[in-house]
Amino acid sequence: MKIAWIGTGIMGAPMCGHLMAGGHSATVFTRTRSKAQALLEAGATWADSPGAAAADADAVFTIVGYPADVEQVYFAADGILARAKSGAVLVDMTTSSPDLAERIAVAAEERGLGSVDAPVSGGDVGAREARLAIMCGGSEAAFNRVKPLLDLMGKTVELMGPAGAGQHTKMANQILIAGTMIGVVESLVYSEKAGLDLNHVIDVIGSGAAGSWSINNLGRRIAQGDFDPGFMVRHFVKDMGIALREAKRLGIALPGLALVEQFYEAAIAQGLADRGTHALFHVIRSMNGA
Amino acid sequence: MKIAWIGTGIMGAPMCGHLMAGGHSATVFTRTRSKAQALLEAGATWADSPGAAAADADAVFTIVGYPADVEQVYFAADGILARAKSGAVLVDMTTSSPDLAERIAVAAEERGLGSVDAPVSGGDVGAREARLAIMCGGSEAAFNRVKPLLDLMGKTVELMGPAGAGQHTKMANQILIAGTMIGVVESLVYSEKAGLDLNHVIDVIGSGAAGSWSINNLGRRIAQGDFDPGFMVRHFVKDMGIALREAKRLGIALPGLALVEQFYEAAIAQGLADRGTHALFHVIRSMNGA
Repeated sequence: MKIAWIGTGIMGAPMCGHLMAGGHSATVFTRTRSKAQALLEAGATWADSPGAAAADADAVFTIVGYPADVEQVYFAADGILARAKSGAVLVDMTTSSPDLAERIAVAAEERGLGSVDAPVSGGDVGAREARLAIMCGGSEAAFNRVKPLLDLMGKTVELMGPAGAGQHTKMANQILIAGTMIGVVESLVYSEKAGLDLNHVIDVIGSGAAGSWSINNLGRRIAQGDFDPGFMVRHFVKDMGIALREAKRLGIALPGLALVEQFYEAAIAQGLADRGTHALFHVIRSMNGA
Repeated sequence: MKIAWIGTGIMGAPMCGHLMAGGHSATVFTRTRSKAQALLEAGATWADSPGAAAADADAVFTIVGYPADVEQVYFAADGILARAKSGAVLVDMTTSSPDLAERIAVAAEERGLGSVDAPVSGGDVGAREARLAIMCGGSEAAFNRVKPLLDLMGKTVELMGPAGAGQHTKMANQILIAGTMIGVVESLVYSEKAGLDLNHVIDVIGSGAAGSWSINNLGRRIAQGDFDPGFMVRHFVKDMGIALREAKRLGIALPGLALVEQFYEAAIAQGLADRGTHALFHVIRSMNGA
């Protein structure tokens, strides 16, 4: 199948690589051409704009930065919606707003195009190892056409509902992580202040009813003083911002998420934007004079 | 060994039973004598007060309700500290305040007694199946003397530090759960409002970086509309209250915990005190008009 791939960053590059390794021919565009170099050397064709990349593709994949970037690559005068050929399926894998996913779906349908919102979880490791969870929203017809391609990138590929449902599921994932993370860091700040050994605490509480991926992975890194990013604070703040705006659009209050988002804003204020999400520990710790 | 057991409720009765099954002779006291009936039929001796139960024991175990109850059974004129024989080890397994555990340790030492604070996690199922996690604080000498007895009740029996460290570790456990639970219920309230199938969402997000025991067990019960208690709201509120007071004593703010505790107070206001901790879902849901 002819595919277009827009956005070849730390996630997009290996994901596109899996499609090419699966026998699909790719035309790529990304803002910084050097980031597409490995794909071009592996046989991908370069295009000078998202629209130009999309023009001849059966399926168009995007994974860019912020919802504003998604809006630009889809809705610009020379964007994907203006240039994609009839019958193509548009797959946005950026973590972006459900609202925007619905608008892309409406615009795509008006032009005889299919669309799927398909954000992922699993990070750069999941992208490299083709073990992502891919949460999809769209029609069954559009989903079924790109499912074999998504299977080349992910371990779990699920249609969650109509357009926007993939993004909604990703938001549910991030809201869940936000609460879990405040629990992790407050628990460890308390433990430290109480004079406990953090690794010993995690040994004991990490395997029972208090257990989570976060305490057993990020909690361990906190105990070791390692704040290198798995997932960066700045990206998590972006996602929580989308979740809060979407909650507002849905007409619901999520006070736990709102509080946690504010502490992550403080993390950015402390210069921790490029540290891992577990750097929230520094915020609660420094707030308490440590 | 001759043991005394004070408090034969849903946790204490099976725990004492394991010690008796291990060949230890028990003298028991509990507020409501009928709750000791099975143990008495199995050969335990009844005593008319905590002090009377403790008088001839080598090890005295307590698991009662609130810190005020712990204070009473230890410090009353006819209490454990007044009556225990020299050399006995006092083991409080109630989830109680680290501060009180330290006071018991000081009073015990003055009287030539050993002491261990040893709260548990694992619930009534863990108590029945002798699979509790037992988090201990005290001297190594006192811990080592009761360790073979604790091993009859628990799967994980760990000395976390000096007197109070067991209770501190339990508080760390509950603080971690508090954050995780607000994440779980806000994530599911959002998902419901977004029109997603809750079980399908849990299938997808429960196994990755957002995963936790809480989402995979209590989240499932929420999705099924089952709010029967594993762990009751009223008991969790007790524990969070201890954690907040102890954080204040340590001189630290835990705003996530404070917020979650307030929502659990609202759960009680809504008549949910005897429902499971996942009934927090009703608070966030009803707050949002559903």
